[in-house]
Amino acid sequence: MSLETLTQTYRPALEETLRNAVQRAAGADFPELQAMMAYHLGWEGEGAGPEATGKRIRPILTLLTTQAAGKKWEHALPAAAAIELIHNFSLIHDDIEDNSALRRGRPALWKKWGIPQAINTGDAMFSLAHLTILSLAESNSMEVTLQAAAALQRSCLNLTQGQHLDITYETERSLPIEAYWPMVGGKTASLIQACTEIGALVAQADAPIRNAYLRFGRNLGLAFQVLDDILGIWGDSEKLGKSSVSDLVDGKKSLPVLYGLSQKGEFAARWVRGPIRPEEVPALAVQLENEGGRDFAQSEAARLTDSALAALDEAQPQGEAGKALRELAGKLLQREV
Amino acid sequence: MSLETLTQTYRPALEETLRNAVQRAAGADFPELQAMMAYHLGWEGEGAGPEATGKRIRPILTLLTTQAAGKKWEHALPAAAAIELIHNFSLIHDDIEDNSALRRGRPALWKKWGIPQAINTGDAMFSLAHLTILSLAESNSMEVTLQAAAALQRSCLNLTQGQHLDITYETERSLPIEAYWPMVGGKTASLIQACTEIGALVAQADAPIRNAYLRFGRNLGLAFQVLDDILGIWGDSEKLGKSSVSDLVDGKKSLPVLYGLSQKGEFAARWVRGPIRPEEVPALAVQLENEGGRDFAQSEAARLTDSALAALDEAQPQGEAGKALRELAGKLLQREV
Repeated sequence: MSLETLTQTYRPALEETLRNAVQRAAGADFPELQAMMAYHLGWEGEGAGPEATGKRIRPILTLLTTQAAGKKWEHALPAAAAIELIHNFSLIHDDIEDNSALRRGRPALWKKWGIPQAINTGDAMFSLAHLTILSLAESNSMEVTLQAAAALQRSCLNLTQGQHLDITYETERSLPIEAYWPMVGGKTASLIQACTEIGALVAQADAPIRNAYLRFGRNLGLAFQVLDDILGIWGDSEKLGKSSVSDLVDGKKSLPVLYGLSQKGEFAARWVRGPIRPEEVPALAVQLENEGGRDFAQSEAARLTDSALAALDEAQPQGEAGKALRELAGKLLQREV
Repeated sequence: MSLETLTQTYRPALEETLRNAVQRAAGADFPELQAMMAYHLGWEGEGAGPEATGKRIRPILTLLTTQAAGKKWEHALPAAAAIELIHNFSLIHDDIEDNSALRRGRPALWKKWGIPQAINTGDAMFSLAHLTILSLAESNSMEVTLQAAAALQRSCLNLTQGQHLDITYETERSLPIEAYWPMVGGKTASLIQACTEIGALVAQADAPIRNAYLRFGRNLGLAFQVLDDILGIWGDSEKLGKSSVSDLVDGKKSLPVLYGLSQKGEFAARWVRGPIRPEEVPALAVQLENEGGRDFAQSEAARLTDSALAALDEAQPQGEAGKALRELAGKLLQREV
């Protein structure tokens, strides 16, 4: 209940902040640049609407954290919008890098406008995010603004480090399980960590509380990715709005796959022989499950979930926003949002 | 003389700041990411050396401005390094967007490592630049740091706006001359403007002086691009280290070309019929020169050069660095560096 109410309170202000930022970047002088950004953010073009905007989980997590840590959520709006812009910039580039034609059930930006415009629009959105977070100075101290900007930029760097490993891993048939964590720590957890880290920073919470929020975000992000990996093999691909039938076909080095490889059983034997064909997927998914890949990933997700919720307890989140934060974590970890 | 002496003073500290930044982004944990950055920056790999690093004109311009405006150049080092990283990030992405195989006479990053890694390494360098400029806070006030970060980020946004127009113009056979200025104002002048704007900001010069430095940088950048356009048609392509024989073959909407189109003569008639073949270039370059394209561009370059030098006079640059700044402008405007 708290989560829905607060989300409804935040959303109009958040969308307005995002729209103002895009307007600033690409107003009347650059109508096509604006059109590309508005398309990707789900506001315009074929298929525009709630399904296409995504759920704005990251900015909501940021605003909830600021409020739960004892400050008005409005103070964190520029940071929340900046994080959502970073998330979307990374999706624009990832879709090119991964050769993914679909994003949230619609053609990816590069499919509609070509690779050169899509790379550049991603860069424009990246710049815009960095400009947007500096607006924190309008309602926060310069020190908070600088710290928040630095935290966001560190997280962007981690994002690219994780993506670098992801691309590098594509051409390797086998990898140890340990190779997984720096990849997902960068490409998924770093930005979710930034949400709670920056949210608590804006609230000027004490260092131990800020640190607890940071660990909450980090473990939440890691658990979220492990659950995503499980769905990528045993979930419903249509429901996820993805272009491929299975992560197995994409050759993705997900946690269940790396576990399966470590077992050196039938799954590993098939995997190292080369790309998986779509018709092999059902049997191979069963094989990997039988060899323990699903259970292992589930137990890792449970472990990370416990760490996330323990850190959230340590952070002592307050009031309605505190309740909503627990609710959001619960939903994310059951993949209901 | 002043320019050479000061450049030799700045260069070791500048390279060290750049190397520390790259080390920070991609140290022992990400050796290949570091190798890609070091290759692009001219430090490593086949053909590494002074020719491959580029001339570091932008950071030197930044450091000279800070010193000429009355503060120790060391204060501006993080800003100078950040600007050079932004310049290099944009080259990495531009080469993909323009399908250019060569950069400073060596294979472009994407040719060696593929498009996905090159996009992502550009993003990593972009993040790194934004992190690096925040280090200004170590020897400058928080206010100066925030203002400098905002100026850099505005310039990055302008850079992407200019690049957006450049890509958009590729598919249009004809354009009015006025379409030229927002494109080059963004893709070339914005970052050169940022050098002098931020250099003067770090020196905490008074507003009129800062504004004069800003206009100096902007007009210098515009003049530089117009001269580049002239060389792109009537210059020696080998000397420029470019892959194509002429901007005419690339269909680039340079200033001489847009002037030629506005004349609606023989040059325009040939241009609108479709792509130029390499063997047509010598005759067509003569045709465009006969129709006044070269003279027009030369007169625009002279006008912008005068504006740049007048603004530099207004800025009252001091001491050795002031002399060096005039020297650098003169050399840039004669394309001797």
